[in-house]
Amino acid sequence: MDEATFHQKLRALPLHVGAAGLGDDVALLDGLVITVDTLIEGVHFLPSDPAPSVAWKLLAVNLSDLAAKGAVPEGVLLSYPLGNEAWDATFVDGLADALSQLGCVLLGGDTVSLPAGAPRVLGITAFGRPDGGAIPRRSGAEAGDALWVTGTIGDAGAGLAIARGAPGPERLLQRYRRPQPRLREGRLLAPHVSAMMDVSDGLLIDAARMAAASGLRVTIDLAQVPLSADLRAWGGDALAAATSGDDYELLFAAPADRDPPVPATRIGSFAPGRGIALLRNGAPVPLPATLGWQHGGLR
Amino acid sequence: MDEATFHQKLRALPLHVGAAGLGDDVALLDGLVITVDTLIEGVHFLPSDPAPSVAWKLLAVNLSDLAAKGAVPEGVLLSYPLGNEAWDATFVDGLADALSQLGCVLLGGDTVSLPAGAPRVLGITAFGRPDGGAIPRRSGAEAGDALWVTGTIGDAGAGLAIARGAPGPERLLQRYRRPQPRLREGRLLAPHVSAMMDVSDGLLIDAARMAAASGLRVTIDLAQVPLSADLRAWGGDALAAATSGDDYELLFAAPADRDPPVPATRIGSFAPGRGIALLRNGAPVPLPATLGWQHGGLR
Repeated sequence: MDEATFHQKLRALPLHVGAAGLGDDVALLDGLVITVDTLIEGVHFLPSDPAPSVAWKLLAVNLSDLAAKGAVPEGVLLSYPLGNEAWDATFVDGLADALSQLGCVLLGGDTVSLPAGAPRVLGITAFGRPDGGAIPRRSGAEAGDALWVTGTIGDAGAGLAIARGAPGPERLLQRYRRPQPRLREGRLLAPHVSAMMDVSDGLLIDAARMAAASGLRVTIDLAQVPLSADLRAWGGDALAAATSGDDYELLFAAPADRDPPVPATRIGSFAPGRGIALLRNGAPVPLPATLGWQHGGLR
Repeated sequence: MDEATFHQKLRALPLHVGAAGLGDDVALLDGLVITVDTLIEGVHFLPSDPAPSVAWKLLAVNLSDLAAKGAVPEGVLLSYPLGNEAWDATFVDGLADALSQLGCVLLGGDTVSLPAGAPRVLGITAFGRPDGGAIPRRSGAEAGDALWVTGTIGDAGAGLAIARGAPGPERLLQRYRRPQPRLREGRLLAPHVSAMMDVSDGLLIDAARMAAASGLRVTIDLAQVPLSADLRAWGGDALAAATSGDDYELLFAAPADRDPPVPATRIGSFAPGRGIALLRNGAPVPLPATLGWQHGGLR
């Protein structure tokens, strides 16, 4: 069963009003923004990734969902598979460092034992508080809105290739291993955007999801997709960058006549219709076979 | 690393005030009671257990943690590994049934993909609201308190043996596959108890945990441990029952001169000191090698 079909079946279950029809990455309860993300060894991280990096990433990807809703992290619950003593110890050290650097605290922790040889499965439930009140949904884009993205795209995809043995600079590797949730940017953007989400599965697939949730068509100009100097030097191109995922930048829709209050790049626009279209410097480009990842995972 | 050592390391991390030092099964945030539980194939359920039973158990074990705090279920977040189409479809049907029968709704759902052949890992984060205000901790037992337990103990342990092929009645099998969270009992008990928790890993180990959290010694009379007629007919004995886990009954401490407001059995008492002692009709019984499970899991 694919993710869309499964979610469709879930939507037929008795839902909480705060589930908002399961149409977003978060739930709302008593004014709290709540999100769950799971990282699986061999799917979301490599067995060779150091334990402190996995701890960082586990926390960062959850806080990234809060950032996209303009929320301030309040705390996290950890679900952790006890296993190798040395790995477990450095994981906790890494988590301490990540909590401290990302301004978050632990609300609780549950340990589980995995069968021998099973891949590690780590979960976090993260709680955030809206900073002021505006909680942008992914479904709020309007026809005529511009599409923007923070930071640069594709660095983590290159970093994954480097983690797997390709030559390349440490800075790109760290973009894959230690994503930076855009918490400050999310808080500043929240009151000014019509829709916002983080880029986790790939710029194109996530933009297509925002368009679908908003009942619109989105057009992206690949020539505008922001690539880092490191990625250009490494030989990365815009199409690979826009489908490689793990960026954890913020993707948002805003009225075309307004500039955002944080540095960001305008990469496209919304119009009546459905689906996604690509341009390069104004000329149509065929869609690639895959726009990104369907439910997370290494490429 | 064992669970206790890992939790000790977690306690050194930056903690939320609602984590209460990680000393309980739940966290408290904005008046909500929050718990996370994970079920792993081959550890917490058998590959042969039907998908609807697994859905039931996943929800029930989480609601059992809420029951032990006297909380009313508000909603759950699901983390689900997409895999086999038929299994996924019947899982959702089973979850619909469980939500409806146990009076709960879905707040959100996250799907993940597992590597081929990896055991299923299913997670729920459950949210509850205290019914009146009293939230019993596991650490509140006082010297002189009596120890009580609801229902009968050991049925699920026998049910697991039956699920694995031993002969035995369907009713015991269903006690393993479809535990009943004591939500009503928990709400009625909460204002009257000094400490409460659910029995998940085994009566003895969970009683020992309550004693340790309360800084006391607990003594349990095995002759008082309530066994069902089914379990007696099946040949179950009190010591096996008290160490077999998966009961999801409520274990609570209350002043010795007071009877609880719901049916329950008095099985022991708290005194100054530490550790756990066993009696049978007043005579000392040596402690078994294992009191139950350290962090969940099939016996």
